[in-house]
Amino acid sequence: MTTVSKVSESQVEFPEQQRRASMTVGRTLLDAVHAVRLEVSNVCAGRGVCGKCRVVVTSGSEFVSPPTDLERMSLSETDIKEGFRIACCARITAAGPIGIQIPPESLTEAHQLLIAGIQPRVELKPILEKYFISLPQASLTDFCPDLERLVDALEARGNLSLLRPGYSALKELPEAIRKGQWNVTVTVTDEGLITWIDAGRTDDRLYGFAVDVGTTKLAAYLVDLRSGIVLGKASMTNPQIPYGADVISRIAYVSKGHEELHELQRKVVDATNTLIQECCAQAAVDPKEIFQVVIVGNTAMHHIFLGIAPKYVARAPYPAVLRSSFQTYASEVGVTANPGCLLSALPCVAGFVGADAIADILATEIHKSQLLELLVDIGTNTEIVIGDQRRLVSCSSPSGPAFEGAQIKHGMRAETGAIERIWIDPATLDAEYSTIGGVKPRGLCGSAVIDAVASMRRTGILDLKGMIVPNTDSKRVRSQSGPTEYVVAWKEETQTGRDIVITQRDMEEIKLAKAAVHSGIIILAKHLKVQVEDITRVFVAGAFGTYVDPYSARTIGMYPNIPLSRISFVGNTAGSGARMALISKEKFLEAQKIAEKLEYLELAADPDFQKEFVNSLYIPHKHATKQARQ
Amino acid sequence: MTTVSKVSESQVEFPEQQRRASMTVGRTLLDAVHAVRLEVSNVCAGRGVCGKCRVVVTSGSEFVSPPTDLERMSLSETDIKEGFRIACCARITAAGPIGIQIPPESLTEAHQLLIAGIQPRVELKPILEKYFISLPQASLTDFCPDLERLVDALEARGNLSLLRPGYSALKELPEAIRKGQWNVTVTVTDEGLITWIDAGRTDDRLYGFAVDVGTTKLAAYLVDLRSGIVLGKASMTNPQIPYGADVISRIAYVSKGHEELHELQRKVVDATNTLIQECCAQAAVDPKEIFQVVIVGNTAMHHIFLGIAPKYVARAPYPAVLRSSFQTYASEVGVTANPGCLLSALPCVAGFVGADAIADILATEIHKSQLLELLVDIGTNTEIVIGDQRRLVSCSSPSGPAFEGAQIKHGMRAETGAIERIWIDPATLDAEYSTIGGVKPRGLCGSAVIDAVASMRRTGILDLKGMIVPNTDSKRVRSQSGPTEYVVAWKEETQTGRDIVITQRDMEEIKLAKAAVHSGIIILAKHLKVQVEDITRVFVAGAFGTYVDPYSARTIGMYPNIPLSRISFVGNTAGSGARMALISKEKFLEAQKIAEKLEYLELAADPDFQKEFVNSLYIPHKHATKQARQ
Repeated sequence: MTTVSKVSESQVEFPEQQRRASMTVGRTLLDAVHAVRLEVSNVCAGRGVCGKCRVVVTSGSEFVSPPTDLERMSLSETDIKEGFRIACCARITAAGPIGIQIPPESLTEAHQLLIAGIQPRVELKPILEKYFISLPQASLTDFCPDLERLVDALEARGNLSLLRPGYSALKELPEAIRKGQWNVTVTVTDEGLITWIDAGRTDDRLYGFAVDVGTTKLAAYLVDLRSGIVLGKASMTNPQIPYGADVISRIAYVSKGHEELHELQRKVVDATNTLIQECCAQAAVDPKEIFQVVIVGNTAMHHIFLGIAPKYVARAPYPAVLRSSFQTYASEVGVTANPGCLLSALPCVAGFVGADAIADILATEIHKSQLLELLVDIGTNTEIVIGDQRRLVSCSSPSGPAFEGAQIKHGMRAETGAIERIWIDPATLDAEYSTIGGVKPRGLCGSAVIDAVASMRRTGILDLKGMIVPNTDSKRVRSQSGPTEYVVAWKEETQTGRDIVITQRDMEEIKLAKAAVHSGIIILAKHLKVQVEDITRVFVAGAFGTYVDPYSARTIGMYPNIPLSRISFVGNTAGSGARMALISKEKFLEAQKIAEKLEYLELAADPDFQKEFVNSLYIPHKHATKQARQ
Repeated sequence: MTTVSKVSESQVEFPEQQRRASMTVGRTLLDAVHAVRLEVSNVCAGRGVCGKCRVVVTSGSEFVSPPTDLERMSLSETDIKEGFRIACCARITAAGPIGIQIPPESLTEAHQLLIAGIQPRVELKPILEKYFISLPQASLTDFCPDLERLVDALEARGNLSLLRPGYSALKELPEAIRKGQWNVTVTVTDEGLITWIDAGRTDDRLYGFAVDVGTTKLAAYLVDLRSGIVLGKASMTNPQIPYGADVISRIAYVSKGHEELHELQRKVVDATNTLIQECCAQAAVDPKEIFQVVIVGNTAMHHIFLGIAPKYVARAPYPAVLRSSFQTYASEVGVTANPGCLLSALPCVAGFVGADAIADILATEIHKSQLLELLVDIGTNTEIVIGDQRRLVSCSSPSGPAFEGAQIKHGMRAETGAIERIWIDPATLDAEYSTIGGVKPRGLCGSAVIDAVASMRRTGILDLKGMIVPNTDSKRVRSQSGPTEYVVAWKEETQTGRDIVITQRDMEEIKLAKAAVHSGIIILAKHLKVQVEDITRVFVAGAFGTYVDPYSARTIGMYPNIPLSRISFVGNTAGSGARMALISKEKFLEAQKIAEKLEYLELAADPDFQKEFVNSLYIPHKHATKQARQ
């Protein structure tokens, strides 16, 4: 039996993603895509009609069914000759190895991820420099050791001192000198540490890598340190997700013991290595040409990446292990780049204000602003920073996963079939919506929930307290089948065949989430003795913030009551800040200064927090009527 | 058959040496000792009468024959109760596991090795210090990160600055703080690198380890860095020997590729780890309490230990890879001590003047002498240093293995049965001799060969050119059976049943060896423009030098023609220098200064070398007659 089962299985390989799956004969290539946890556009839900799930069979086409008529409707003859197939139509017909490539346009948006972010102009001056140097050849009258020969030659240039070799560089030294026939290229930090020695002339190639380690996603950038240009970008789901979607459950897991910590460290480091491979392939760079890797991430991700137990980060009073930047060799952490590659981690401030927030500040330059500014990076924990060049205060507010569609009755991630925007007609109280992928709706993603709450408040469906007001005039407001709810989409319109609704219970979740953000802003403003209305600019960082309608967000009180023109969506500034620290030693040092300057307020310890939180449970907030700007 | 054979075999284990052997029933425990390549005193050659090969059966005595009457002549009842046995008498009687311990006095001198060496008084001030510190506990109003909390508390002591954590220390930090309930002991280098953090108070325990990595033997010392006292000593054969007895063949082996280099590095590092275990067991110290390891060795051994390819060390112009001291984490090299343990390698000067010579100088303090001094460390390569506090010159002379008994017709290592001293009666030309272990002779070790040559020269058996002069008056000088030879021991006196002789051919080997040393000294003296007669002190370092009769050595011209009272035997000063660098940062830095100051003369490049070498082939040398002091 075992033999039969083996024989009727094909190995389906996705070389670009370095993944493979065993698939039984009869399954589709789409099944194989899902088996390796990739997502392709698939608007028609596998019925072969939308033609979005295009893949290329690069090898083993003899083990795949011939193109169907349905496929020929979406593919040209040239496409077919080049191996293009509609993944949901192409079936495995016999056991044998099959190679599959997924064109970028077929990958879903969720897998494309927001990897851009604003980045101020930075003078290119990385921590590392490469020097090409010709050495005098050793002879029986000049038997100076290799290292001293090299150091003497480098020092003769006049701009280097305190030179000393890293261990990897030292081991490479004798061979590099002979291979390069006494011509070598030396990689040196601005503090004189020789991190690597190449045979011959390679000073035109110096690369760095920046990674934003998010709880959910990793975003990575390959940067040419000779020009500052980003040569490759890649992102992937954080492979730690199976160990817990949020930081708290991951901290709980790694706190079980050294092995568990090492296991999750291994996961994220392996993922980083995969991203290095991907980005390097994009730019024809060898990973060995990467000489510095900069990482940012929230405190827990940062600590786990470095193998530092974040156990106490999750326990009051939530201290981080370090507020300093930290630098070591990438190889010590398991990152595979040049053997002498440095790994630089930006500093963390507290348990829940991490290196990502520092990178956000670096990129948005709040710390240099003459006017009062606010930075909000919305997530399961929302980091908030208020201040200007004189003073900066930060906090982390536990906004929970409601914004990401979790704990919402019909909530879902921002995937195909998710309603992403909602408008309610104030006269009829009817809803209009748009979905991701333009297909029939399956549920509501975070931005839609915020739109719904805002529209419901504006149209009077919700009262100030966020209670759904009974209304017999509209069929959409109903309470017969349990708690009061508002129907966003009727079952006839949905994929699921059921009404998509927002319930009073959902409302409570959203109120808790937005109250966390709102009260955090209020407490920080009080602490700084400023009025939120005086905030001249709000930077909304991160993917979620970018997708949320600012008008709706302000309506529900998530953002301060200020003109929308003051709100800037800055994208993944954590990644931007990491890149800035990579291409500029000055920015790397500035990050350290920001961490030292940035005050941290533990909301739980603030005497006003309880009251402000309760006030913030109103929509937009308890004292809103006098000053509402809607 | 296989089963039967298995059943009739015992596993004999030597836990202290971490060795084991499968022995068939019927074999003796002495066979088992030999099977694991250990050597015990065995003067009677296994006949059970000398009682020297005492071992202790620690387990499995039921698988060993009961004590014989012969054994009872050497062992008391108490001995027998305690498990003592005479290894050559005790036989394995049945298959089963047997544990054996070898008392130190039973091990042969060859395995005891010279691990003492002179050591000047040194002020105890190691590179590392431990600080016990109580930290203010974190609270909701004091959530300073762990590291900054620690650094602040340490800096408040006033004597520390520029504090920064090593990676291992950082990873240990959060757990150590909580486990110690906010009391920790921090290990810090004098430059502010935090290498480790212990929970609670451990500042009374700080240990270091010094290793002299010889081509043939490793000698190791566990040192209490709180008192400077040596707590444990151990030595073992360099496990690289199967890859070549001399440095040149080892360099040839590791030059084949990275794998071979890594293989030999692994061997010597594993041996070091075994020595750490042994020394720690002697002193009830945990290897994790070792915070610094200092290594010395000749350039090839030093490079291989560090995994640095010594390929070019063996090729003209024989450059070392580095003349600097080098420090990294012991874990990077594979040495198992504290995770933050530092590994410090003393500097090398040239391909054949290595860290061991620097350590010799550190221990003999030639570099501080106001008068002219000479250091000679005799081996396959003999390192020679001449000078004083103003100037020091060194060279390495390829004296070859003749001094160690190799390439000598009846030569052997300094083991039981080797003739070690020889006296020739000037009247009768008859020889008297003594052997190691006082048994019948089997051959000649290096010191005997030098004695023989010296006596033969003094008695006229040899002429100035080192030729055996035909002499029909003595039966001992003969040439009938081939080249001319001198009979040291008649076959009736020997274990082998054959005459033990010194041949004219042996003479040529010895002349080459001693000429290498002699001409090296002459060339260095010329280079310094001094007379060898003005040398006020000769330090003879290393085990071989200690065993050689200085009168004989001077007679043959191996040592300069100076009063014997000026010759000091200083033992293993390489080990002493390593210990000095371990207990004193100042000495570690001094080693670097010595390496920078020490001039190196490449003999092969010196225009006078050829001539001086040829002159030195005379005994004692060509122009000796005018000035001989014999």
